[in-house]
Parts: sequence; structure tokens; C-alpha cells
Amino acid sequence: MRAEIVAVGSELLTPYFQDSNSLVVTERLNQAGCEVRLKTIVGDNVEEIAALLSQAFRRSDLIIVTGGLGPTQDDLTRPAVATALGRRIVLDPDVLDALRARFASRGYTMSSNNERQAEVIEGAELLANGVGTAPGMWLEEGRANIALLPGPPRELVPMLESQVLPRIQAKASGRRLVARSLRIIGLTESEVDSRVAPLYQRYSGVETIILASGGYIGIRLQQWLEPGNRALEIEELAGRIQAELGTAIFTASDESLEEVVGRMLQQAHLTLAVAESCTAGMLGARITHVPGSSAYFLGGILCYNNQAKVDLCGVSPDVLQQHGAVSAQTAEALALGVRRILGSRIGLSVTGIAGPGGGSIEKPVGLVHAALSHDEDIRHAHRVLPGDRQTIRERSAIMALSLLRSHLLSAAERNKP
Amino acid sequence: MRAEIVAVGSELLTPYFQDSNSLVVTERLNQAGCEVRLKTIVGDNVEEIAALLSQAFRRSDLIIVTGGLGPTQDDLTRPAVATALGRRIVLDPDVLDALRARFASRGYTMSSNNERQAEVIEGAELLANGVGTAPGMWLEEGRANIALLPGPPRELVPMLESQVLPRIQAKASGRRLVARSLRIIGLTESEVDSRVAPLYQRYSGVETIILASGGYIGIRLQQWLEPGNRALEIEELAGRIQAELGTAIFTASDESLEEVVGRMLQQAHLTLAVAESCTAGMLGARITHVPGSSAYFLGGILCYNNQAKVDLCGVSPDVLQQHGAVSAQTAEALALGVRRILGSRIGLSVTGIAGPGGGSIEKPVGLVHAALSHDEDIRHAHRVLPGDRQTIRERSAIMALSLLRSHLLSAAERNKP
Repeated sequence: MRAEIVAVGSELLTPYFQDSNSLVVTERLNQAGCEVRLKTIVGDNVEEIAALLSQAFRRSDLIIVTGGLGPTQDDLTRPAVATALGRRIVLDPDVLDALRARFASRGYTMSSNNERQAEVIEGAELLANGVGTAPGMWLEEGRANIALLPGPPRELVPMLESQVLPRIQAKASGRRLVARSLRIIGLTESEVDSRVAPLYQRYSGVETIILASGGYIGIRLQQWLEPGNRALEIEELAGRIQAELGTAIFTASDESLEEVVGRMLQQAHLTLAVAESCTAGMLGARITHVPGSSAYFLGGILCYNNQAKVDLCGVSPDVLQQHGAVSAQTAEALALGVRRILGSRIGLSVTGIAGPGGGSIEKPVGLVHAALSHDEDIRHAHRVLPGDRQTIRERSAIMALSLLRSHLLSAAERNKP
Repeated sequence: MRAEIVAVGSELLTPYFQDSNSLVVTERLNQAGCEVRLKTIVGDNVEEIAALLSQAFRRSDLIIVTGGLGPTQDDLTRPAVATALGRRIVLDPDVLDALRARFASRGYTMSSNNERQAEVIEGAELLANGVGTAPGMWLEEGRANIALLPGPPRELVPMLESQVLPRIQAKASGRRLVARSLRIIGLTESEVDSRVAPLYQRYSGVETIILASGGYIGIRLQQWLEPGNRALEIEELAGRIQAELGTAIFTASDESLEEVVGRMLQQAHLTLAVAESCTAGMLGARITHVPGSSAYFLGGILCYNNQAKVDLCGVSPDVLQQHGAVSAQTAEALALGVRRILGSRIGLSVTGIAGPGGGSIEKPVGLVHAALSHDEDIRHAHRVLPGDRQTIRERSAIMALSLLRSHLLSAAERNKP
């Protein structure tokens, strides 16, 4: 099925709002075997919505229209669809009663505005709204199947899942999208592409998307399969990429780096504390994004200024004087110090120059040192990270997590029987 | 000028990518007096792009097409536009020479793929690309002005600003968008709406958008003005809203709460340290988002577990035992402790239950206590915040910043001569 998504709402044509509904709609449609071929955003204007929909009805098998079903004068999806289809709008007495009852049960009298939400396009099947007041609608016209869904995600998603997808699946050919995703740390996008392009170019049936996002590189493999066909190609390609990139792949199941590291810490019965300078909390915040992280994360110290590095993390003033706050020596002293002070098995530290000021020729903006202390082991990493202040700080936190992961991988390797 | 934006790229039709280019394009077009009336996302398919553009040329004065100008076989904007306009594509020898020279200067031989980037649609004016290899194009056809721009933002934005906007402004009517934005803390979206609706309803010429985003409520006022008209209405309405909401408005100039608080700390020559439990770094991370925050932020302690609260922040085990880690007493002890240990003038703390586990009937998930210690002053706030783990943590950090702002406001008030 060839699908398109139309999002209705003038606010989506300002610089302040993204149409994020279409991402979740696309994901669900893909799972149900529908490919999304076009997405359009149109403002609250009956003629413009109707003109757009007239074209959509002719070119697509499925049109998902989101938004514009509310009670205000800006909610124009109903009259626009009626115009485009040349159908009448009728007031549905059952919907009206249900609306009145809903308001009454909350102690309100329904305003006449809300009667609008009982307006139904002739021939439409109603889609019940378990959460809000506006019902959705399902319409068929020639080859086109049309779903009108409310804009708020908490109303839209359940209606899509429980009432639209079953209708689509009943009509679908059984074609399905299979996908695999791999996440990589420690390589650049072009390094990843140059190593895996010779592999994926041999699998023309598989679509390969390489994307840098949130400090990782992601590889997404996907393929539309006809009924009865198995995902052999995609599995084979994923296996070859895994063999090529090895431990640079930190997950094949959409986990975040902090989830992976958290699992490794728990498996090894280790505890962690952090000392953060330039990131000033971003590392601790990431680690504790994971529910249950209190099982291995004890806490940390934000040693944003030098005094805090000395007083709270036990870095010697001589080390700071001789090597500076952004140095391997200071990073290592921070890792050792925070481990001792928090009583954790592992101490992890990060110190760097996030900019925009504070750089020099020897120590440019973006220079970051991370270090780890565990029993007798000390590990250290440093890089000059590109980007603005925020990007450098985010990448610094990821760099520290990556150092921790490398260490846990080799520790696990050493402990193998 | 009536504008529309067409984003080309199959990746933008997956659940993994947003068309974020269109936000910055919209912002710049609005500033240049163009209203964006439609946005479309289309995949890498010549027929589909061409069909869409044929419609666009008829309905819009300005069409901004982003993406699909690169060197690969998926880059199909050029042939699609040529098809839609019924024009030929010619190889531009100057562009070809420039491309070859660019590759040579970096020690590469240009592959034949890249020749594609020297293909120019008949009658197009070239838009130089200072950053990448693909030039943009400016075309005129009937009433339609068409700009073809590269997809990568660092190529797109400079080309738009330096070469497209001047062409638009030369043709524009002088109509302009004026806007004011206000950000509010401590009130819900519906509280804000119920207080300001009676005001903005009297200004029908001003479009009022209320949005909850990133833990704040924003009010955006905007109005298209004809040449010579002044923004009297919008200024008057902004003034009335400011009078109504008072100090709940923390900025009228798009600052973040951490920027506002940072400025207040600097003006009052105060220093700050934080003790974070449930946020585990999110508060420190926010405060240090602001460049130059080292002038007032000394550091902090992530006391994620109880031992760290006792050992590092000096909370008495009795207080923890008697009142629990999430209590006014513990929050106050943390604020006092971290201020003493870091030697800051102000100590700020936050402790709460972020979930999904750990809640009880007396202390449900979402319960958060924040406290502040400054000289003899102790302030405290608590709330039960809605949402998932991440939302509760983000709101907790904002709640602490809001407590700090309230305190600094009253301190400034007290110190007035």
C-alpha cells in the first residue's frame, strides 16, 4: 500500500514546531506493510487542505490526516475533507449524546463549540477516541482509504494502533518491512562508510542508511519482503558488517551506550563514581537515564573549578600547576580521587575545554581528557572534539562512557576461563 | 510572497529523520516577509518529485527545494526540476572546472559521479556553494521563483542567507513579520491560557501561540505588517500580558532559565554549588550550558545514593532515617552541606523519586523536593511532577532553577535602596 501523511495545523508551518506525529505514524505503517511516499504539512485553511487532499485521493492508497479535528474555529479537517470528497457533513446524534455525557460526568455543560466534534462526514466510519473528545473517521473513496486522526499523540497513537492498523492489515498484501540496526562508537561516519560500503553494495535488495546521531554512528538495514520470503539477505549483510566492525558495534538492539555499560557493570558486580569538569553533570545524567542505575552508580563530583578538583577530588595542586586542569595527569588524579572518595570500584573522569573561550595553541577548544581507575588499572583517552560548546560536552560524556566500555570489554576478556 | 518548502530525500520518509531544515528556512523566509503555506517531503524518485513540483509552480510564488543536489544516483532534484519545467540539463564547463580544481587542491582526482554536480538546468542562475561541492540554483518560471539548495545545513543556511534572501527581498512587498516571545515558569499551560485569553482575544490582528516546551510555557505573539505600519498592537498586547503574569515571565528575549539565573547571580556577585540526587547531573549540566558560567558556578556533588549524601554532603544519618532521602529536611541538609563543602555563597539541592520504581503511597513517583541555602536563608519547594522518568528529572532541574530565581528576585527586591 502506498501511503501518504497530511498534517494539518498552522503552528506546524512556524519555525517552532516539528511534525513529530508523522515519525510514529510512519513506524507503525511500515510495520503494517505500508510504505510512506509523501508527507505534507498544511495550514488551517479549508481551500488549501481540500486542494491538497483532492490530489492525495488520486495518487495514494492510504491517506492519514492528523490534526484539525478539535472544537475550535481553526479545526478545519472535517469541512475540508467533505469539500474534497464532495460529501455532506451530518450531525451524529450518538456522538453528540456521548459528548454531552462526557462533559456532564465532569460537571461541565458542553459549549456549542464542542458540537462541532459531533459532525461526521457522510459515509464515514467513526473511530472511537478513548482519551479525548474528538472521534476519528475512516473513509473510502475509489482506491483511497482515508483515516482522519486527532493531533495530540496520546489520542492519535492508540486510535492508529487499535482501529486503523487492523483495517489496513485486512487490505494489505502481506508485504512487510524487516529492519536491523547497529550502533557504533569510536569511528567517524566516513570511516564506517568506507569499511562497510564494499559489503552493502553487494546486497542491492537491502537499503542501507548510515546516520550520525547523538554522538553515535548508526547503520540501519531495511528491506521490504513479499509474503513468504525470508530475511536472509539482511541477516547475512548484518553478520558481515558485524564481522568487519567487531567491537566498534556496541549494540545490535537499539540500546544506548549507557544501557550497554550499565548492563556490563551489573554483570561484573562493579560500582561506578564519576568526576566531571567540562561536562559538569552530563555524564552522571546520562548514566542515570537508565532505570535501576542505582544498582551500580554511587554518585560523583562536579569539580567545575580547580579548587573543587583539589578539595573534593584530592588532585594535588602540583599536578594542576605543572600539567594544567585539562591534562592526562589531572584526569587520572580525578579518576583515582573520586573512586577513593565515593568508595566505588571504578572511578571515571572527564576534563576538557568546551569553549567558546579558554583555548590556546597547545590546548585548543575541544581538547578533552578522560581517565578511568579500577584496582591497579589506569586508562586514559584524549581527543580534540569538533563542534560547538554543547556538542563538545556531549561528545566528552560519550568519550568517557566509551573508555569505560573498552575497559569492561578487556576486563571481561581477561576474566574468561 | 506565498512560499512553500519541498524537502527531497527518502531518509526523510523513515521514522528516523525529521526535516529540521525547514524550520530554519521558515524562520529566514518569515524575516524576509514570506509566509510559508505548505511543506512537503518527497522521496528520491524523479517522477514523484516532478509531479509535486509541477503543482508547486502553479500555486506558489516561491518554492524552496532542499536536498537531492549531491553526486550520487539518489540525488535527483536536478532531473526532476528539469522535467517539471520542460527544460534541458546542460553541463556547465565553468562549474566542472571549479569542481576539478577543488578536488585537485585536496590531492584527489574527481570521480565521474561528481560531474553530475556540474549539471545545470537551462536558464538557471547558479548559487555558489562556499562550503560544499554542489552549487545551488535560482530559476524563474511564470509567477514562480524557485531556489534549489543543498541538504546539509552548513551549506544550505549560508546560501539561503547570502544569495536567496536578497533575491526575495528585491521582489518582496515590504510586508514583514513582527514577533514577541515570552517564557513563563511556575504556571501550567491551561493556567497561562485562562489568564491571557481574555487579553489576546481583544487583539484579533495578533496571532497568539501558547506552547509548552522544554519545561517552560512559551507565549509567541506575531503579526504580519504591511509596509509603513507599526507594531503597536503587538506591543500593547505584550505589555498587558506582562502586567497580568508579572514575575512568572522569566524572559521576554528568548533566554533560557539558566541564562537568566546566571545573569542574576553575576549581577549579585554570588557563587553557586549544587547537590543532586534524582537529577544526578542534569542541574549542573544545565547551569554550565551557559558560556562563562565558571564565573559563578563552582561545582557540585552527585549524591545518588544515601552514603554519598552522608559522606560527601554531611547529611546526618538521623535525618535520612527519620525523614527519608526524599524530604524537605534532607533537601535542606543537602543545600546547606554542599554550600559549606564547596565554599559557595548559595547551595541548591534537589532530591526526588524519578521512577519508574521506588514510589509509595506517601511518596509517589514524581515527588521532588528542592532547597536553597544562602546566608541565613533557607528556602524549600516540593511538587509531585507528572511524566516519565526523563520528564520528571528534567522538570526537577527546572524546579530547582525556578526556586533559585525566586530567591534571587526577592533578594534583589530586599536590597533595593
